[in-house]
Amino acid sequence: MTFLNQKYERLIPYTPGEQPQNQSLIKLNTNESPFEPAPGVKKAVEAAAATLNRYCDTSTHVVIKPLAKQLSVQEDQLFLGNGSDEVLSYIFQGFTEKGIAFPDVTYGFYQIYCDMYQVEATVVPLKDDFTLELAAYDALEGAVIIANPNAPTGLLLSYQTICAFLDRHPNRLVIVDEAYIDFGGESMVPYIDQYPNLIVVGTFSKSRQLAGARLGYGAANSQLISDLNRLKYSVNPYNINSLTQAAGAAVLAEQEYVERCIEKTIAARKWSSAAMKQLGFEMTDSYCNFLFVRHPKVSGEALFLALREKNILVRWFNQPRTKDYLRISVGTQEQMEQLVKALQEILKEVQV
Amino acid sequence: MTFLNQKYERLIPYTPGEQPQNQSLIKLNTNESPFEPAPGVKKAVEAAAATLNRYCDTSTHVVIKPLAKQLSVQEDQLFLGNGSDEVLSYIFQGFTEKGIAFPDVTYGFYQIYCDMYQVEATVVPLKDDFTLELAAYDALEGAVIIANPNAPTGLLLSYQTICAFLDRHPNRLVIVDEAYIDFGGESMVPYIDQYPNLIVVGTFSKSRQLAGARLGYGAANSQLISDLNRLKYSVNPYNINSLTQAAGAAVLAEQEYVERCIEKTIAARKWSSAAMKQLGFEMTDSYCNFLFVRHPKVSGEALFLALREKNILVRWFNQPRTKDYLRISVGTQEQMEQLVKALQEILKEVQV
Repeated sequence: MTFLNQKYERLIPYTPGEQPQNQSLIKLNTNESPFEPAPGVKKAVEAAAATLNRYCDTSTHVVIKPLAKQLSVQEDQLFLGNGSDEVLSYIFQGFTEKGIAFPDVTYGFYQIYCDMYQVEATVVPLKDDFTLELAAYDALEGAVIIANPNAPTGLLLSYQTICAFLDRHPNRLVIVDEAYIDFGGESMVPYIDQYPNLIVVGTFSKSRQLAGARLGYGAANSQLISDLNRLKYSVNPYNINSLTQAAGAAVLAEQEYVERCIEKTIAARKWSSAAMKQLGFEMTDSYCNFLFVRHPKVSGEALFLALREKNILVRWFNQPRTKDYLRISVGTQEQMEQLVKALQEILKEVQV
Repeated sequence: MTFLNQKYERLIPYTPGEQPQNQSLIKLNTNESPFEPAPGVKKAVEAAAATLNRYCDTSTHVVIKPLAKQLSVQEDQLFLGNGSDEVLSYIFQGFTEKGIAFPDVTYGFYQIYCDMYQVEATVVPLKDDFTLELAAYDALEGAVIIANPNAPTGLLLSYQTICAFLDRHPNRLVIVDEAYIDFGGESMVPYIDQYPNLIVVGTFSKSRQLAGARLGYGAANSQLISDLNRLKYSVNPYNINSLTQAAGAAVLAEQEYVERCIEKTIAARKWSSAAMKQLGFEMTDSYCNFLFVRHPKVSGEALFLALREKNILVRWFNQPRTKDYLRISVGTQEQMEQLVKALQEILKEVQV
C-alpha cells in the first residue's frame, strides 16, 4: 500500500557516489578532500559530545560568527544548512515560483529539486567545449543557478561576467553555487551587498575537509537570509547538530591548515593533469579539486571499469554528453601518482 | 527585495524553546535528558571525527542495523531523519494529499507542517480533561497523527485503542509520534507488520540523551519506508552526518545505561509530582519526561516568571487552552528538589 502523494510518484532521486567501506580502495569518486580535518576538529567534537543531551543552538551562532568574519559579511547575511544541498533545497523550494534555468551539464541535483518542488526548469545547453554563455540566459525569466566553477566540467566563469549579468537583470534571482571556488576561482561573496538578488552557496565539504559533517552556507542580502530562515524554522530548526557546529567552528579557527591543503590539492592537480596529458588524455581546464578527462581511444566506461579493477574508484556519468569522460577527484600527490601509473598500465593493456 | 514564493508569505515558523548559554540555570524547558550521553558516545564520535573529510554513508546502515535489532523489525522497515522533526516533515510533505487530522493541544509543528506543505488540517479538540477520543476521528478522511504520549499534556493512549482505530480504518494513514514512549508507554512498533498504514516515529533526543546530535526514525511497512527514502534522496541524501551516525550506534550498544537513566527519570517524576501535589498543584497523569501542571491560585505566566527569577527555566505556552499550565521537564532528582523548593518559596511570597 502506498500513500505517496501523486505528484511525487515520478520522482527520480539522486544517486550518490559510492562510499565503499573497503579501505584499500583509492577513492577519487566524490571530490572529497584527501586530507584529515584540521587538527582542532577532533578536540572540538569530543568536547561537544559531552553535552549532546542538550539541544543544539538553532541560531548556529558559533559558526555564523567566525564565518561572517572570514567572509567579511554581516552575520545576518549568512544561513547554514545541513550540507549545501539543504541550502540549495530551500532555495529551490522557496524562491523559484517563476522557474529557474541552469546548464544541461552541471550538478545533477538542480533538476531533481525542480522535480521535487514542481519548479519549471529551463535547461540551457553548454557550448560544445562545455563553456557557459550567460548571454543565453538573457531572454529567459525567473531565477538562474550556475555552479561556478561548474561540475563536472571544472570550468570557471569570471566574477565580472556574472556581475554583468546581475547588472542586466536586477530583478532576477541569481544563485552561484561555489562548492569548488577555493581551488582557483574568485568568490562572489563580496558582491552580496551590491546585488540584493544574488545568493552565493558554499560548503565545508571540499576545501574545509568536512564532507562527513554536513555543513554548507548561503551568503546573501539579509532579506533573502531571513526568508531562508522562515523556511528552516518551518521545517527543521535544529538542522545543524552540536557536533557539526563544533567541527565547523574549529575548522574556521584553522584557516592556515585549510589553505595548506588547498595548495597541495592545486599542486597535485597541476602535476596529474600534465602527467595525464602525456598519456594522451584530453581534459577541461579545471579550477576544482577534480579533473574531467577523456581518452580519445578508450571509452569512459572502459577506463572506469579498468581503474576499478585496480582498486581506484573514479566517477563515470552515464549521460549522453559526458559518457566519454571520467571525473577524477584530486587526491594526495601519492594517490595521483598511483592513478597515473594505473592509467599507464591500462593503456598498455588495451594497446593504445 | 524578496523572492519568497507567495505561498510561504504567511508562514508562522516554530519557536524553539530557549537554549541559554548560562550554565547556572536549571534547564527544565525542552524535555532534554538531564543525563550525559552514554559513555561510549564520546569515543565513537572522536573516532568518526578523523574521517570527516569523507562523506557520510547515505544508507545510515551503522545505526539502522542495531536499531532494527533493538526494535525487532527489518532493516527496510526503518528510516532515519535529522531529528524526528525531519521524519515528520517528510511524512507531512509526502503522504498527506488527502489532509491530516490532529488534536488542538499537541506538538506545535504539526500545524506548521500543514502550513508549509499546504496540507488541509483538521484540528480536533481534546476533551476538557485533555484526553483524546479517537472515535472523534472516525468520520474524517485522510491521515491522522497523534503524539503518544501526547505533549504537552503527557497523557497516554493505550495501544489497544490505536489498534482498534487502525482496524476500523485500514486505508487511512496513522502516524504515532512516540517521542516520549520510553517513559512509561508501550510502543506500537511491534504492530507495523500487522498494519501497513501505520508509521511510528521515534527519537534519540529524549530517552537516549542525543538531542544535540539530531537523530530520529520512522518505523513502518517497507513500502512507506521506500517512499520516505524517495523523498530523502530527492532532497538531502546525506541527512545524517558521520558523527551523529557514530553517536547513534554507540548509544544503541549501551541500552543498559539508557534504561538506568529512564528509571531515574521516572523516579524523579514520581517524587516531584507527589511533592508538587502537596503544594496544591494540579497535573495530568504524565507518561513523559515532563509534568504538565497548574496551580489553582497562581497563573502560569506568573509562575514561569518567578521560576525564571530563581534561575529555573520551564516552558510556558501562551495559548488559550494551556496558558494556565507549565510544562516542566523532569531533571535529576536534585534538580527537582531545587524546583520544589523554589515553588514553595514562590507560593509563600505570593501568600497563597
